[in-house]
Amino acid sequence: MGLFRAAGVVYKPVENLGLGPSSNEFYLKANVKAPRMAGFLVKIFAWLLESRIIGRLLLHMLKRNNLVHKLVSNAMLEESPMFVPSHPFVDLKEQQVEQIDSDASPSERVQQAINCLPLTSKKSLDDLKPSSFRRWTIADYSRAYSSGEITPLRVAERFIDAVRESSTGALPMSFFINYDAEDILRQATESTLRYKRGDPISALDGVPIAIKDEIDCSPYPTTGGTKWLHKVRRCTGDACCVMRLRSCGAIIVGKTNMHELGAGTSGINPHYGTTRNPYDPNKISGGSSSGSAAVVSAGLCPVALGVDGGGSVRMPAALCGVVGLKPTFGRIPHSGVLPLNWTVGMVGILAGTLEDALVVYAAISGQLQSYEPTTLPPKLHVPLLNSGNPISDIKFARYGEWFNDCSDEIRICCSNALHLLCEHYNWKTVEVTIPEIEAMRLAHYVTIGSECTASLGSYLEKLDFSKLGWDARVALRVYGAFDSNEYIKAQQIRNRQMEIHKNIFAEADVIVAPTTGVTAYTIFDDALKTGELDYINGAALVRYQIAGNFLGLPAVTVPVGYDKEGLPIGLQFIGKPWSEPTLMHIAFAMQALCISHYRKPKVFYNLLNKN
Amino acid sequence: MGLFRAAGVVYKPVENLGLGPSSNEFYLKANVKAPRMAGFLVKIFAWLLESRIIGRLLLHMLKRNNLVHKLVSNAMLEESPMFVPSHPFVDLKEQQVEQIDSDASPSERVQQAINCLPLTSKKSLDDLKPSSFRRWTIADYSRAYSSGEITPLRVAERFIDAVRESSTGALPMSFFINYDAEDILRQATESTLRYKRGDPISALDGVPIAIKDEIDCSPYPTTGGTKWLHKVRRCTGDACCVMRLRSCGAIIVGKTNMHELGAGTSGINPHYGTTRNPYDPNKISGGSSSGSAAVVSAGLCPVALGVDGGGSVRMPAALCGVVGLKPTFGRIPHSGVLPLNWTVGMVGILAGTLEDALVVYAAISGQLQSYEPTTLPPKLHVPLLNSGNPISDIKFARYGEWFNDCSDEIRICCSNALHLLCEHYNWKTVEVTIPEIEAMRLAHYVTIGSECTASLGSYLEKLDFSKLGWDARVALRVYGAFDSNEYIKAQQIRNRQMEIHKNIFAEADVIVAPTTGVTAYTIFDDALKTGELDYINGAALVRYQIAGNFLGLPAVTVPVGYDKEGLPIGLQFIGKPWSEPTLMHIAFAMQALCISHYRKPKVFYNLLNKN
Repeated sequence: MGLFRAAGVVYKPVENLGLGPSSNEFYLKANVKAPRMAGFLVKIFAWLLESRIIGRLLLHMLKRNNLVHKLVSNAMLEESPMFVPSHPFVDLKEQQVEQIDSDASPSERVQQAINCLPLTSKKSLDDLKPSSFRRWTIADYSRAYSSGEITPLRVAERFIDAVRESSTGALPMSFFINYDAEDILRQATESTLRYKRGDPISALDGVPIAIKDEIDCSPYPTTGGTKWLHKVRRCTGDACCVMRLRSCGAIIVGKTNMHELGAGTSGINPHYGTTRNPYDPNKISGGSSSGSAAVVSAGLCPVALGVDGGGSVRMPAALCGVVGLKPTFGRIPHSGVLPLNWTVGMVGILAGTLEDALVVYAAISGQLQSYEPTTLPPKLHVPLLNSGNPISDIKFARYGEWFNDCSDEIRICCSNALHLLCEHYNWKTVEVTIPEIEAMRLAHYVTIGSECTASLGSYLEKLDFSKLGWDARVALRVYGAFDSNEYIKAQQIRNRQMEIHKNIFAEADVIVAPTTGVTAYTIFDDALKTGELDYINGAALVRYQIAGNFLGLPAVTVPVGYDKEGLPIGLQFIGKPWSEPTLMHIAFAMQALCISHYRKPKVFYNLLNKN
Repeated sequence: MGLFRAAGVVYKPVENLGLGPSSNEFYLKANVKAPRMAGFLVKIFAWLLESRIIGRLLLHMLKRNNLVHKLVSNAMLEESPMFVPSHPFVDLKEQQVEQIDSDASPSERVQQAINCLPLTSKKSLDDLKPSSFRRWTIADYSRAYSSGEITPLRVAERFIDAVRESSTGALPMSFFINYDAEDILRQATESTLRYKRGDPISALDGVPIAIKDEIDCSPYPTTGGTKWLHKVRRCTGDACCVMRLRSCGAIIVGKTNMHELGAGTSGINPHYGTTRNPYDPNKISGGSSSGSAAVVSAGLCPVALGVDGGGSVRMPAALCGVVGLKPTFGRIPHSGVLPLNWTVGMVGILAGTLEDALVVYAAISGQLQSYEPTTLPPKLHVPLLNSGNPISDIKFARYGEWFNDCSDEIRICCSNALHLLCEHYNWKTVEVTIPEIEAMRLAHYVTIGSECTASLGSYLEKLDFSKLGWDARVALRVYGAFDSNEYIKAQQIRNRQMEIHKNIFAEADVIVAPTTGVTAYTIFDDALKTGELDYINGAALVRYQIAGNFLGLPAVTVPVGYDKEGLPIGLQFIGKPWSEPTLMHIAFAMQALCISHYRKPKVFYNLLNKN
């Protein structure tokens, strides 16, 4: 009978796992066995999966070949399931943090965060030398507006022109799914008036911020990258995080493109066009928050919001050469975000600089509204980046085999960056072994897939499947292939990994790894209309993402270099729960060592430049 | 494709549900469509279910006919899933409670609980009049031991004789799966020595307490009512709750019989014999904590421990005429209890009187060891039952259609008891509507079934299925039939019902209902060897249980009368999270009004009587 299945792994008690560098635990590379498919092949594959008998058989084979049966379904382990990665508050006694009153308004919190930033001299806007590229920051916008050098309205006009320009030509960038010029100009006019009256709301006043089309935001529908979801689920107002940004005076400039339903990592969207990488428009931007990463990279906004359920903020951030911050699970209210899952996704921040990520983090963090009993820290702590002294005695955990399971260029670049960082600040790296990373990846996949199926179930009934892109059809079919035993086993693995990571964090402050295993890869024409199935590149992209989502840990990616083709490389820091201040300190230190080498993307818009 | 299924219910927003007596929400009776099966029919049914194609078809039909597809699988609802019914602590400011220091040892806590009990005059043990039946209480044992009227050793000998006697004859009672006379006598000898030295550990010293065979307890294996589980999962020591009882000096007298794997409610066990009802050995005792209820009912122990995952403490307690207490989820540590599920089961207490339930509750409650972040009350509150003043202004919520969905005799008996209670204490009943009770029952079934499958998965692989009873084979087959979408939808329904119940509790302190829809029914011979499938009686038994388990609410059942055949009837009080003191006050008041009418079971052993 069905209960008798292929033997599963017998997991050892966690206390018997060696976590040191010479552990017996071996590193299992993702066992992805699937050729790249696009065009007609994807269609055939979707059709087969959707057929009753063959589909079932194919799914069974897919699960078996990808070791789902062995590592999840039939696994033998004693842990209780942990369904939600919520973390009780522990006062980490971090160095150099500033407490922000959680009761303060978003705009007050922005001001307090600004006070933590290093003072940059009030440079002229013409200061930008071609040799040293940098993106305009929130502080630059705020200063330019306050000094009268430029108005929010003028910036908004330039923004609209730039988006229009980016949509034309042989390689349209497809940054946005929706933007409403009239709505943008209205907000910009109001902001301009506030500056004229000498009464801007906060440093964010008049700053253009883009929102991933997975987050509710008036007056736009929330498409989730689809052609139908917004028709069956109406957007009735701003998500909580958007509301907070708006209350700071930010100009919400539209809904950025994304991988359909967040069900892929390339950003190839057959409905709204494929978001192209500003560093090379022939390459993907990464996903699923593709547009949010690309608009920041291309200079259209200093900051954009994304949602990160399986690396969806950090991967495109790395591929597009910007900062990506995924906070601790529960840190930012999830209300008004498409419920594509409940236990892995978090709103995240994409920004040109770590400082800007900090400012927006301060604005949108705060009490979760109604979910499982949660224990948010009583105060919001932010890193004091302007004290002049770096934090001391940081220990990085580095799992060599995992760290090195990436392209040669990424490995060398990330290793050098880490080395530089440790040298410069006298920080240490300890070699560790993190067991069962591949089992965690599969358990996370079972979880996000199952939750997506349950959450979309209601809507899918009303849906003509032909309205879905082909790769999303395949994804949904695989997502729906798990039984309740597999879901619960995945939660047991979650608990187990939580224990493993607690043990790692007993030895080190932060886990360090590349952000992705590959840099942005080529967009082939045959993928544009059907989407693409490229599980090998997909696995290389998500390789370092899972702990952030499945365990609810905070993580940040910082650009640290470029490959031979000039495509950005990101280094990732994964922290203990609620340790965002330390992560930001480290990321800021890393950025400080790299920023002078940052390169300008091929597609870039200089909204503040007078020329 | 599979995603397109029969239409599901569209659930309204909770705030639009009418919860008053004239609500539009209609009461959906459990739509159980299955004939009673036993003997050969159960075998055929199990075989069919286990066959590949027909089994799948049958399961589909079962799910459809029982409205699983309509009310769970394809349901459309907006709530997030709530996976674990853990409740943050709210200080309820209950009346007449005593705070017990959570750091106190179990024996100290027992003493503090004893101090809360009304003083009964030190009656002679010969006091028992035939007209007014009562069971010996912990206080009776303690007094008799302290006064030297009898020794624990003598009681243990009588206990062993009684169990032997109960196992013989045409209708063996099958109280225990395992008891070890030598181990019992050893404990009793030690206790006797302590009393001789004038140094008993606590009021529980020398008191016989039985443990459901789902709870680890040395020197016994933990069979879970099976012939195999203890062979693949070794019992390595006492569960936390047993350890605490032992530390109070209680004599652990063995492992009580139970429904195999807790997967049924009758207590019919083909491996260890069917536990018979002391009030009529031709009737079931109820389950799954069948033996624990029956030994208390038959006077063998004043208290026994059970586990309640779907009414498994309260149902047999009601059917056997004793008190059954299921505390708030997380109140009693679950370590050392068979992990047959993770989110619905709780250790519960079966006792002859409410006072004894209170004493053992005080002994075994306390900090859960390692589970999801939990928020146990900082102090353990117990009801002050000896203040002389009843608590005031209690409001009961009564849902008429649900309350009355039981046999006429139960309806009348429970209504009268409630009426009497309200009259006597000037308490009020408010009529309410609790919507979607049947959806909650199904969601709970999906949950407990899925979790049982996942938890046993590891063991089942090693198992020859022929070692399972036939009804357990059927249950496991149905338990394994759910996909991850159904499991998650069930958790969304859990969240929804939590909201509904919060709203009910805004209007009333306690929900009141009969404990079961039927009294103990007849054991037919054809069921003894194969087990029995009687989903109609099963549904009537669990009808009032689910909120206690699925929402983690505390609940208590008190005997309030007997049907024409002399079979006991229980009335149940379901409280807010952490409101055990109020529940116990109410149950104590109810008991006080009924106790003079309590009847002696046909099978009864008077261990303290000198005669």
